[in-house]
Amino acid sequence: MIKIAVDAMGGDYAPKEQVEGAMLAISKIDDIEIVLYGDPSEINKYLTNHTRITIVESEGTIDMGEKDPISAIRNNRKSSMAMALSSVRSGDTDAIVSSGATQALIAGAHILVGRMKQMKRTAIAPVIPSVSGKPVVLLDTGGNLEIRPEFMLQQAHFATIYAKEILNIDKPKVGLINIGTEDGKGRQLDKEVFELFKANEAIHFAGNVEPKVVLNPPCDILISDGFTANIVMKTLEGTAKGIGAMLKEELKRGVLGKIGLLLSVKNLKRFKKRLAPEEIGGAMIYGLKGVVIKAQGSSKAVGFYNGIRQASNVVRQDVIKKVSEVLEKEGN
Amino acid sequence: MIKIAVDAMGGDYAPKEQVEGAMLAISKIDDIEIVLYGDPSEINKYLTNHTRITIVESEGTIDMGEKDPISAIRNNRKSSMAMALSSVRSGDTDAIVSSGATQALIAGAHILVGRMKQMKRTAIAPVIPSVSGKPVVLLDTGGNLEIRPEFMLQQAHFATIYAKEILNIDKPKVGLINIGTEDGKGRQLDKEVFELFKANEAIHFAGNVEPKVVLNPPCDILISDGFTANIVMKTLEGTAKGIGAMLKEELKRGVLGKIGLLLSVKNLKRFKKRLAPEEIGGAMIYGLKGVVIKAQGSSKAVGFYNGIRQASNVVRQDVIKKVSEVLEKEGN
Repeated sequence: MIKIAVDAMGGDYAPKEQVEGAMLAISKIDDIEIVLYGDPSEINKYLTNHTRITIVESEGTIDMGEKDPISAIRNNRKSSMAMALSSVRSGDTDAIVSSGATQALIAGAHILVGRMKQMKRTAIAPVIPSVSGKPVVLLDTGGNLEIRPEFMLQQAHFATIYAKEILNIDKPKVGLINIGTEDGKGRQLDKEVFELFKANEAIHFAGNVEPKVVLNPPCDILISDGFTANIVMKTLEGTAKGIGAMLKEELKRGVLGKIGLLLSVKNLKRFKKRLAPEEIGGAMIYGLKGVVIKAQGSSKAVGFYNGIRQASNVVRQDVIKKVSEVLEKEGN
Repeated sequence: MIKIAVDAMGGDYAPKEQVEGAMLAISKIDDIEIVLYGDPSEINKYLTNHTRITIVESEGTIDMGEKDPISAIRNNRKSSMAMALSSVRSGDTDAIVSSGATQALIAGAHILVGRMKQMKRTAIAPVIPSVSGKPVVLLDTGGNLEIRPEFMLQQAHFATIYAKEILNIDKPKVGLINIGTEDGKGRQLDKEVFELFKANEAIHFAGNVEPKVVLNPPCDILISDGFTANIVMKTLEGTAKGIGAMLKEELKRGVLGKIGLLLSVKNLKRFKKRLAPEEIGGAMIYGLKGVVIKAQGSSKAVGFYNGIRQASNVVRQDVIKKVSEVLEKEGN
């Protein structure tokens, strides 16, 4: 049995969607157990089926707008997030899924789970949709603002193994996010990373990739530093949201338009679903001793279920051990 | 009369769309003359009305995929782009519009038009659409990869005056592109620029802006270094293109969907037009002694007309002189 810790109190719709997501996961995945960390009286409002689900009581939550995430974790060791993280470190659980505040989760993961010794910097790696339907890993969206090329190489190794084991891509291609496709483009960092990737046999390097193909990239992994990849993710999100708003406004103009819109409702829903990040799952934090999955703050039950499924896959495929072995061999 | 130089041979559809755009501009704007630089025999295939349009013969073009833009300009002084740029420097014309290769145009503008002495770095500043319909200036999308905070302040002054004079925004708000909205977010550069903007009375500073509101920003100007802003622009472009492809695919599914799509055709066209950059005009290169407008490589006649209109507005409002005066006063 794989045991998944769920931070039931973090996120915009906690604990309702977290609890419902957990029950959904239990109904669909046979070899997992779930431990819900949170306020039992709140959780029990929604928990209608206790099959393979237990509750561990926690006290307080980490505020979503927390300014000082490290203190937030240190001063709230009994919060649902902190207790769920600690359970991974102690071995009580095999993985944690949380849709709590990102920075607090990262800080907490460092403090309470710990970094794997072969990786010098963690990275947050969401999976983004693409026009072709194939999933694409984007990293680091987590905020390692200034990073050394060799640390990015370690992250690329992790992403490669993740894409192979979890997304079932045979030889995942790595693309370096850049302002031009030619060799030698970009900042000093980009040039150095380019050479490192090119020279490494375990990396299937697709060269520089411009984000004007962000939804149709010639690779399976899009990588940059924690500032740039975060900007890419947020611009993608902002453009999708903005276009959605414009489209809605335009489509309902005029009588013919309104009828057209009615007839298109089902297709538009499918379109929206294709872009929804929660259909794919959460973002894994690479580089820790344990499996930590960040689900979107706005995750509903389906999103949370997908995060739990993803966490169980990472455990089942023993991704962290495989990464350690590759990095050991690489001599990092 | 304002005299506009048009690089008739640069761009994906040259010279047809350039020539038609020029004729359209003449028909709509009374106080301009246009000089078309290019191959007269090619131009005359499309030039059906010579009113206030003259042709100056050039030799050869700058290739769109030019690897070494500086040599390309130096070795092709008689190309349409080089001759059109030189005409601005010599005073034969007041502004140039080109949809030729961006890097060659920037290099050529430096060599043949020259940088204004008060600005240490040029910037490319396209105007992007927004959900509310108000135009937003984005800069620098041009590739000053490593830049000093005080040079970004100069660029922000330019953008402020441009937005006021050309976009008719009374007190244009400047937003610093960043990975979080809180003060103190971002890289060292971002932190220093934040303080400079905050302290400057001529800058109406809106603070840090995350690109997840890129199409609905709480400001009129979005600024970052030449790497980051280029990444934002390309991600925006890539997301819009990708979403367009997905939408088309989804909307035509099923019989009802197909009928709905037919009824929505007019609205979808309006939607597409709202996002089309060429409806707004080209990107101005800030920081030169003359007015240089880069129209999209894929510009059709309307896009080119909008670039010419924009160029004439910048000349009419005497933007460059106003910027010089402000920067002189700022003591830069």
